[in-house]
Amino acid sequence: MSRISYIEDFSAWEKEFSFYVPISVRFSETDMYGHVNNVSPFIYFEEARIAYLNSLGVISKDMRQTEGVIVSDLQCNYLKEIYFGDDIRVYVKTASVGTTSFDIHYKVVREEEVVLTARGRLVYIDTEKKVPRKLSDEMKQKLLSDILHFDNVAANL
Amino acid sequence: MSRISYIEDFSAWEKEFSFYVPISVRFSETDMYGHVNNVSPFIYFEEARIAYLNSLGVISKDMRQTEGVIVSDLQCNYLKEIYFGDDIRVYVKTASVGTTSFDIHYKVVREEEVVLTARGRLVYIDTEKKVPRKLSDEMKQKLLSDILHFDNVAANL
Amino acid sequence: MSRISYIEDFSAWEKEFSFYVPISVRFSETDMYGHVNNVSPFIYFEEARIAYLNSLGVISKDMRQTEGVIVSDLQCNYLKEIYFGDDIRVYVKTASVGTTSFDIHYKVVREEEVVLTARGRLVYIDTEKKVPRKLSDEMKQKLLSDILHFDNVAANL
Amino acid sequence: MSRISYIEDFSAWEKEFSFYVPISVRFSETDMYGHVNNVSPFIYFEEARIAYLNSLGVISKDMRQTEGVIVSDLQCNYLKEIYFGDDIRVYVKTASVGTTSFDIHYKVVREEEVVLTARGRLVYIDTEKKVPRKLSDEMKQKLLSDILHFDNVAANL
Repeated sequence: MSRISYIEDFSAWEKEFSFYVPISVRFSETDMYGHVNNVSPFIYFEEARIAYLNSLGVISKDMRQTEGVIVSDLQCNYLKEIYFGDDIRVYVKTASVGTTSFDIHYKVVREEEVVLTARGRLVYIDTEKKVPRKLSDEMKQKLLSDILHFDNVAANL
Repeated sequence: MSRISYIEDFSAWEKEFSFYVPISVRFSETDMYGHVNNVSPFIYFEEARIAYLNSLGVISKDMRQTEGVIVSDLQCNYLKEIYFGDDIRVYVKTASVGTTSFDIHYKVVREEEVVLTARGRLVYIDTEKKVPRKLSDEMKQKLLSDILHFDNVAANL
Repeated sequence: MSRISYIEDFSAWEKEFSFYVPISVRFSETDMYGHVNNVSPFIYFEEARIAYLNSLGVISKDMRQTEGVIVSDLQCNYLKEIYFGDDIRVYVKTASVGTTSFDIHYKVVREEEVVLTARGRLVYIDTEKKVPRKLSDEMKQKLLSDILHFDNVAANL
Repeated sequence: MSRISYIEDFSAWEKEFSFYVPISVRFSETDMYGHVNNVSPFIYFEEARIAYLNSLGVISKDMRQTEGVIVSDLQCNYLKEIYFGDDIRVYVKTASVGTTSFDIHYKVVREEEVVLTARGRLVYIDTEKKVPRKLSDEMKQKLLSDILHFDNVAANL
């Protein structure tokens, strides 16, 4: 596990998640290898990310048309195969917050086992000018609220 | 084959197609049964339908924002399994033209073999008021141009 | 609504469903028209169909490798647009049972409104010889158990 | 661009690709934001990867059932939005070869513009014992044949 570049201490990292969405694997998300296709986890990350940002109030239906949050990069490590019928939980947390962007991490768990880990950067943008915007203090606060109760987070900020 | 409700005479029907798009089956479109998932053909029909309507000039980038063509129903008969790596052709033709809507048929062929047949109704609508619009004579002409050279089409009109 | 070929009396038909699965629309299942892509309902029907047949005990993990149930045709009528964030219920019922095949119907409901209707034939097959098998009395019983408590079902059998 | 962790010198990196597959964006691969959903590129990478490994002869239909190549991780950077109707090319190259695994890189180009970059590790495994296998000299040769004509590759090996 030491090879996952964005996780320093796996057993500490694992404990820093609280928000999750339960995901039900769709049959069409399997492939001819008999398990979940390697594309499908990114579908689950998207579901979980939207639910997470809504729950924090970082995105909402009241956002102005001129602001948005876009995906800048995504990265997934496949630890175990996932099968049709598996009940999985996709956990999400904020890992670090910058001036115009923030990183979130994902942990996918089946029963007690971590089957996938992932991360990705999100950028807050002006959707008309297509340039990054500064995160407001309120947005930062909301994002940080998810992580500040973990001791080892400070290092990321 | 006699069971396909929208095809009276299969060997006549088969010959009435000229437009097609070649489709390359994606690995992610297979499922754990080892062949193309039964959802995937509808992806192919959509590709073929858009290409077909563009080629006839029935839809185009110059369409007013207030007009559009929407899918009212879709129906597919699965004759043979399709596998990853198969080269298939998705044929499309207009089967009948009404006042505000028209029916198109699909035939999917692998080498010389028909693997799928399908049909669906499209409705020309006012996208603001969300009500059907009358097809203009020009649109009807374009749609009919695809079929008028077949003797047995008259019956549908 | 009178145009849906497989529904004689919509208000009677509507009432004959009891089994359903709740479906959460995935963001990736929308398209650039801003609502759920017309391919996505077939993903939902597959989910609901598998859950339904499992619940009746018609398919199970204990099935012999030589038997299976395959989709012979599928048909969907789009009544209302579905949006990301909508909570929908996909209802399934057996509509008729034949010697080697059976028809099931689908009703998709958002709040109190029917947004999609659909049907499809399933065939019980010998997966090695790729030919239809006769449904056992037990299978027929299980399928019929879902519908026999509705008065107007007899006509379909 | 300096932020892409797996690319040291973008203009050198860009030139090291020769193999590509043309990809036609499917309508269903867009989302309600009006462009290609962020999940879809991973579908394209899979297509391109399979075609690439087949072209090198690293995977083939003659592979024993006990051997296979699996995805260990995947990573994508989104540089520009992709739209329905865009003609894109997905380039693939081997970036480095290890004892039981190898890294491949992806470059997605629309006209002359790089719209996506990506990388991922593939592991050669014993599909029964589910453990990594040593790459044979022949496999290494095939993978290296794609890159040895580039001066700056040596550093990766």
